[in-house]
Order: sequence, then structure tokens, then C-alpha cells
Amino acid sequence: MDKEKLQSILNEMEVKKVPQMILTDPAAIFYLTGKWFQPGERLLALYLNINGEAKLVINKLFPQNENLDVDLVWYDDTEDAVEILSRFIENGKVGIDKTWQAGFLLHLQELKKECIYCNGSIIVDHVRMIKNKKEQELMRRASAANDQVMEKLIPLVAKGYTETELNAIVKNLYKESGHQDVSFDPITAYGKSGADPHHVTDDTKGKKGDSVVLDIGGILGDYCSDMTRTVFLGEVSERAKEIYEVVKEAQLRGIKAARPGNRMCDVDLACRNYIEEKGFGKYFTHRTGHSIGIEDHEYGDVSSVNTEIIKPGQCFSIEPGIYIQEEEIGVRIEDIVLITEDGCEVLNHVTKDLIVVPLNE
Amino acid sequence: MDKEKLQSILNEMEVKKVPQMILTDPAAIFYLTGKWFQPGERLLALYLNINGEAKLVINKLFPQNENLDVDLVWYDDTEDAVEILSRFIENGKVGIDKTWQAGFLLHLQELKKECIYCNGSIIVDHVRMIKNKKEQELMRRASAANDQVMEKLIPLVAKGYTETELNAIVKNLYKESGHQDVSFDPITAYGKSGADPHHVTDDTKGKKGDSVVLDIGGILGDYCSDMTRTVFLGEVSERAKEIYEVVKEAQLRGIKAARPGNRMCDVDLACRNYIEEKGFGKYFTHRTGHSIGIEDHEYGDVSSVNTEIIKPGQCFSIEPGIYIQEEEIGVRIEDIVLITEDGCEVLNHVTKDLIVVPLNE
Repeated sequence: MDKEKLQSILNEMEVKKVPQMILTDPAAIFYLTGKWFQPGERLLALYLNINGEAKLVINKLFPQNENLDVDLVWYDDTEDAVEILSRFIENGKVGIDKTWQAGFLLHLQELKKECIYCNGSIIVDHVRMIKNKKEQELMRRASAANDQVMEKLIPLVAKGYTETELNAIVKNLYKESGHQDVSFDPITAYGKSGADPHHVTDDTKGKKGDSVVLDIGGILGDYCSDMTRTVFLGEVSERAKEIYEVVKEAQLRGIKAARPGNRMCDVDLACRNYIEEKGFGKYFTHRTGHSIGIEDHEYGDVSSVNTEIIKPGQCFSIEPGIYIQEEEIGVRIEDIVLITEDGCEVLNHVTKDLIVVPLNE
Repeated sequence: MDKEKLQSILNEMEVKKVPQMILTDPAAIFYLTGKWFQPGERLLALYLNINGEAKLVINKLFPQNENLDVDLVWYDDTEDAVEILSRFIENGKVGIDKTWQAGFLLHLQELKKECIYCNGSIIVDHVRMIKNKKEQELMRRASAANDQVMEKLIPLVAKGYTETELNAIVKNLYKESGHQDVSFDPITAYGKSGADPHHVTDDTKGKKGDSVVLDIGGILGDYCSDMTRTVFLGEVSERAKEIYEVVKEAQLRGIKAARPGNRMCDVDLACRNYIEEKGFGKYFTHRTGHSIGIEDHEYGDVSSVNTEIIKPGQCFSIEPGIYIQEEEIGVRIEDIVLITEDGCEVLNHVTKDLIVVPLNE
């Protein structure tokens, strides 16, 4: 168990007046123990008490060679794992992870009728939102590696591959460069595909003048990257240039607004207001971004309704876009930023100047 | 909505005295509506009342072109989906799917404090266990197609591929033969790999005399297949022959015990007792099988502790095995059976005679 992270969670439990918690989300357990578990249908639960007591209830099918620095409580398939967990729980309030299976919760509620159960996910979510120094370095490394994949990918968009083929190539680029995996299924969308927010990768090939949305990310050292660049095939129209420059300026304004003291919604509004001002408001159809860390999407949206104050150590994406289906054009530009004491550090460094990739004709 | 299946569920709700249910498991919703949804973190719930009322609460991000023959209740990301669902719920008992996210359940419990919540999964699970005529035909087709994949695979085990390569080849065989997907990650385990129950596919290559465990299945017409054959590379020792014949006879005894009126555990015991009698009891380390249908593993184990009476229309695997790590040999033989009025129909037809695949030397 990471003592510093554990202490942050205990502090947050104090603030939120939740004296005990049952953590079951694999990402929350990884965050504290440094180990990913995929227990499937079996119970795996980390019980935390505000007095510092911690127990990991775990099936014997998942033997541990490493020292996880937490008391392990073993059970096997013939035992009632929820009953074993319930022995540690004191009467009073219990925070529950929002993704825990209802079957376990209902059984626990039956066994411990005296307790009051609440959704406790926000406690760990809030702590995870602020990356410590080590995590910040891992986020930098992940995004730097993502930059390299993007640099390799851009020239390949003019080679005549279908989206499906390009998608497979991207996955291979991550594998070759030492990533554990992609952090989400890559988007490599030509022309009208990129203009359609619900597009699923298919056998479309790029054609001259197409915008190409490249939204890609990997997992390196257990931390996620996520970046979007939009390039053009062979040529770019005046109209497309205009749209590109509006998105680019909107994204730069978002970055400028990403600093401690501002609210998350201020970043969204900085992008959105500019795009609206330029007359493209109705074509920016999604929130501006999302938090990121050991998962590609973490708690803390960059949206017009999130009024939480931005704090140093946060990492999130800034990714405004304009999608005009009737003109078959889609443009999105995305970087990950890390909030510093007085602004933010942009973790991606691939140019945002407009790129036209020459077609081999 | 499939009227026959719905009626079976309403009948089971009557028997179990659960007047209303919230179905959220994608497989349960597919079972009734014929449509797979992957709502991710968003709420998707099918409310059923014993009076026949049914509402599907669904996010506007999942537009439906097909007629699902059920009232659709739409919500968007700005609305409280649980509150919308709660409007249909009457005071009293409510069955909840065991995999529903705790976050939703806790919120519903807050909104509807008067209700009594219970794990209702067993209701749909029991109904799904009995395949109707149409489903039986789909199970036959899926297993027949699986037979063909196995026939193609067996000669390939002597071509010198690593397990990883063979695994990829199997996946491709399913794709080529019109399957939607594999029903689980194929097992293609040479020698000591097949002897290790926790083995993960790696770069092991087969060598002369190896047992090769081939445990494979696909999804065809939304129904799953699952079969195991064990073959030998180049030659087979007397000891290996003995083990093979014990497993084969045990499996045949399991098939004979698979008939209405017997209990699920009788099938397990028929296999287990024979293997013990022959002195290999401690090397048969798992349950004998599992139910199968629209999911590879469904409710209803073939294990020593499942005393439920077998009924016509059930489909399950019978897959005894012997695994001796110190001798680097593993043998498992598995077929899917469909319970008939007076016995069972074996849905797989690939020979169980011992096969030695010639090595190209």
C-alpha cells in the first residue's frame, strides 16, 4: 500500500464523514496497492477504516508473491466471501464503490442491517484527481511516448490504408514502442467519418482534401496518454483552413484558462465561447475534455456544468472540435495538460500547425 | 420482446414471489429483446411488473431503429436516469440483477425507501437454463460449426506453431467460418502447458509425445459453442494412452448420467467416481462442466454441490480432465449436451478416439 495515497484517502474520508469504505474498483485497488486484479465474478474488496485498518479480502485463486503491504484475508469458492468481509465492518456509515456488483451489496445489506450504505467513489476519485510528483512524471512519459507514435502515424495516413488497416497499424505502433496496450480503441477517421461523432472504424479509404481525425492513446508504466491531431490529405480548402484555425485558437484559449483558481467549466467555456463567436457553436457537440491518469477517462469532466475549482496536480484533456456532417469535415485538436502552481504544462508537443500530408499520386 | 420468454419470466416471478424486477444484465436484456446493448457506465434497465407492464429505460445516445416491442423511456445525460426509472416502481419487493452497479442501486434505495430489494438474477437465470425449440436449434448449429473448426485445427497442431500463433489461427478459423466471435479465448496448450490449469498462452512449441489440449468455442447466431479435444504429437506413451482412456470413459459416463430426473451433481459424480476409482482422483481438479447458451458460462454448474434436478431443454458441458504437472501431461475431453425427454443429445461429433497427429520430421 502506498502510504502517502492511503493517508490522502483517510483525510478525504474524514472530510466527507465516511468512517469506513469498501473499495472494489480494480483501478482504486491498483491506485493503492500498485497491483491490477481482474477478479471477474469473484469478490475482491479492500476494506479501509478511518483508524488506519486495512484488509484485502481475496480469493485463493489469486495467489500473491509480491508483498502488497496490506493484511490479506483469504477465502475459497466454498466460502461466503461477503460474510467474511462483513466481520470487519462496524455499525455506522459505509462507503461503497459505485461499480460494485449489486449481488454483493444486497447480501452485505442483509448481513449488516445496522449500517448505512452510501456511494463512496467520490472519495478515491477526488484523491486520484491530484497526481503526486511520481505520477506527474509518469504522465509526462506517457504523453511523450504518445507524441512519438503520432509522429510516426501522420505520414501513414496518405498511404491508402482503410480505417481498419490504419487502426491495426496504430495498435502495432504502441506495441512496438513498449506500451502495455492502447488506452482506448484508436480513432483514424477520414472525411465524413471524422464528421460523424458516432462513426465506427470501417473500410473507408481517404480521398484528396479529406480531414483525418487521429485520436490515439496508449498505456505506459500504467499511466494513459490521449491526443488528437487532425491533418489533411493532399490539399486543404479555404473553408477547411478556417475551421481548423478556429479549433486551434479555441484549444489554445482552453489551455490558457487551465490554471488553479479557475473552475473546470471555465476551460470548457473558453473553448466554447470562441467557437460560438466564430459561428460554429452548434457544431461543437461534446464536452471539452476529461480527466486522465491510470484510466483514460477519470472523474472530473471539463464541461460547462463542472464548477469544481482547478487544483495543481490535475491532469485532463482539452479537446474542442467542429463536426459538419453535411460538409464531410471533422476537426478536433487535443492535448493533455498538467496543472502547475500558476498555469499548466502541456504534455503533448506534436505541432498544431496545419499539416497537409502529400498524397502519392 | 419475445412473448414466450417474457411469460416464462413472469411465471417464475410468481413462483419466487417477486412482483417486479429491474433487469440490467445485457445478456438478460438480449434474451428478451433480441438486441445486445453495451451501455457502459450509463443506465439501461428493463423494468418488469408481474402484471405484464414492461419499460426499457434507455439513454438517447442509443437510438433504436428496430421495433423492440417494448415501451421505451428515453433520457439524456442531463437527466437523473434512476429517478426516471423509480417512477415505475411500486412499493414492495423489487428483484435486482446481481451485476447492476451499486451506484445506481444505492441511489434507487435512497429514492424509494419503502421498497425491499433482493437479488433477482436467479429468476431469469432459471428461465434461460431451459432452451426453447428455436434456441435448441441454434445450439445445435453452433456446436456443428464448432466441430468443423476443430476438424480443421487438429492437423495444424503438428505444423510447429507456437501456442500464440495457433491461438491466432483458431480465431481466424472462427472468423472465416462466419462466427460473430470466439466465445472465449481459445486454449491451445502443448504438454506441460496443458497440465497446468493456470497456464496462459505463450510461445511454447509442441514436441514429440506431447498431449495437446484444444479447448475452443465460437459464437454463431448469438449462441455459444465450447468443445475440448486432446490429441498427441507424433507418438503416445502407454501411460498417456491409459490416462486418455480413463478421461474418455469418465466423459461417456457423465453423458449417460445427463438425463431428466437425475441431479446436476450426479453427472459430476459419474465422471469423478470413475476417475477416482482408476486412481487419478487428485488430478481432476475442477468441476465437470457449466451451462451454456447466449453466454459461454451460464447459471447452472455441473458440480458436486449442485443438487438441482436436470430438466429437458438444458444445455451444458461435460468436460472431465486429468492434469499431472510432474509428468507434463494434461487430458480433457468436452462436449456440449442438450437434455431431451429421456436422456441427452450430444451436440459435438468430432471423434473421441485417440488421435496421434503425425509430425512432419
